[in-house]
Amino acid sequence: MTRPGEFELIEHYFRPLAADPGALSLTDDAAVYNPPRGEEVVLKADLIAEGIHFFPDDPPRSIAAKALRVNLSDLAAKGATPVGYLLSLALKPDWNEDWIASFAGGLAADQETYGVTLFGGDTSRASGGTVVSVAAIGRAPVGRIVRRNGARPGDAIFVSGTIGDAALGLRIRLGTLDAMPAGKAADHLLDRYLHPQPRVALAPVIADFATASLDISDGLVGDLAHICKQSGAGAEIAAAAVPLSAGAKAIVAADPSALATVMTGGDDYEILATVPEARAEAFATMAAEAGVPVTRIGRIVEGASPPVVLGPEGPIRFDHASHTHF
Amino acid sequence: MTRPGEFELIEHYFRPLAADPGALSLTDDAAVYNPPRGEEVVLKADLIAEGIHFFPDDPPRSIAAKALRVNLSDLAAKGATPVGYLLSLALKPDWNEDWIASFAGGLAADQETYGVTLFGGDTSRASGGTVVSVAAIGRAPVGRIVRRNGARPGDAIFVSGTIGDAALGLRIRLGTLDAMPAGKAADHLLDRYLHPQPRVALAPVIADFATASLDISDGLVGDLAHICKQSGAGAEIAAAAVPLSAGAKAIVAADPSALATVMTGGDDYEILATVPEARAEAFATMAAEAGVPVTRIGRIVEGASPPVVLGPEGPIRFDHASHTHF
Repeated sequence: MTRPGEFELIEHYFRPLAADPGALSLTDDAAVYNPPRGEEVVLKADLIAEGIHFFPDDPPRSIAAKALRVNLSDLAAKGATPVGYLLSLALKPDWNEDWIASFAGGLAADQETYGVTLFGGDTSRASGGTVVSVAAIGRAPVGRIVRRNGARPGDAIFVSGTIGDAALGLRIRLGTLDAMPAGKAADHLLDRYLHPQPRVALAPVIADFATASLDISDGLVGDLAHICKQSGAGAEIAAAAVPLSAGAKAIVAADPSALATVMTGGDDYEILATVPEARAEAFATMAAEAGVPVTRIGRIVEGASPPVVLGPEGPIRFDHASHTHF
Repeated sequence: MTRPGEFELIEHYFRPLAADPGALSLTDDAAVYNPPRGEEVVLKADLIAEGIHFFPDDPPRSIAAKALRVNLSDLAAKGATPVGYLLSLALKPDWNEDWIASFAGGLAADQETYGVTLFGGDTSRASGGTVVSVAAIGRAPVGRIVRRNGARPGDAIFVSGTIGDAALGLRIRLGTLDAMPAGKAADHLLDRYLHPQPRVALAPVIADFATASLDISDGLVGDLAHICKQSGAGAEIAAAAVPLSAGAKAIVAADPSALATVMTGGDDYEILATVPEARAEAFATMAAEAGVPVTRIGRIVEGASPPVVLGPEGPIRFDHASHTHF
């Protein structure tokens, strides 16, 4: 098998993705980016590894999309505007050109969707599984990104979209659910795991309204605990208020233990944000106008402590508060 | 064996490295950087993978140093000032805490040496070998980084330090040299492979004087070809003028075929720069004052073409012009 070399790969598949002048057409050793006056650069790096964050037989387009989107999701949660990304790709020994073509196609589609372009990076071999490392570049007014530490007692707690789908999708993929859904419901959950949807459209609304915000990658309870810890506050959420997709509802109805997966499982990449009570209604309205449904699930309370999830019979305890990829 | 979790690792080993306020103490989802007025951000990402760029039994401090330095070397070649870096670490299944402690120690030492700090990143598992991905952040006056494409006929060609040591060190490591050196000479060459020395001190001089510049990672001839291609010019260098260390001289004397390794082998991370003839002498003086020896090895000539290496009997041809990690 003849495979293209590194320079051919860059020339043929990656250079067409590097539309920004600051990428220097990928013909140089570095990229440049000059944020608009009054703004600063927001940077986030996250990698995904074969066998850990994705399956070897996942479509390459989907792997590309996940690598990029998990980073864009963080920028969105900070209220930042996405600009571009650097890509470092370590390819497993048996990679082939079709894989690269599909992978680059996935990047191209997402660049269109999210308004970003490739700024640079490198391609090399890996001795084990493929690793895709992305460093996302965003911008935001100086000193104004939305942090984890700004939640105040009384703030309303919101989530975007529906919660737990991706973690249930992973359990379907792994075959670890007692009652396995089938058909369209299963497809939806599997897709939610495979194709995170970063809430980039919500970023300007987050920037305007949120006192604290992050994206839910480690699970709702675990990520809310991050906000509580950094803000020196507590939180109460109502399990019944947490928005579930139809598929997730059916699974939890058939197997109540799946509730723990919903509340603590990772990879949703929805936004968890706190908003002052007086602005909660306006926030929900503006989010809907941006095309992103948000749901109020609880409130921030006094006293630094982990979040409390309230069920019909009082607080619900989970064995593990969060999911990590470690 | 009890191993710390991701959050413990970050808290204990990586947070102390995150001194810049823009790193938000690694307690948030992204980092911010605001370049000084009149400057822009310079970004470079490069990863190193176990079994490809480093050996499994390399000291973790050395692996950390290499991952960081190959990126700082690119910034230096562009005349940029290093600021910090994002680190994405995918750890092989049998990692242990001692490895992390040593790795973080290597980063800490280099942060001190090169004036950079950790801005963010992530830690996860790898299913295969360890992968260390770095995105380096630098800064430079807007529109002023030194490109590959500015070399003009008549420009003098310079290299910093000595050439070929790292590639010879790798051959010593692999046992592929006919005449294996021993003792101090071998140690020097092995160290040059293991511990690249990015020429950060030369960056301001490059910014002032160079018409084109890059760092030699793919080999002298191959990297000079990059400058020729991007500048639409040719180059002539004298093999006898290329500065060799005592160890490299001895190897080439014992085995003339090792000259190809010197001229085309990678991983030197020295700077290759072109300077207008009229400023060549001043450049060498300023470089020496910055503590970095530079040597004139040839000149840029008319006509887009690959570089010519002149030996005592005319042009020398090499089977492969450059080394890649691909």
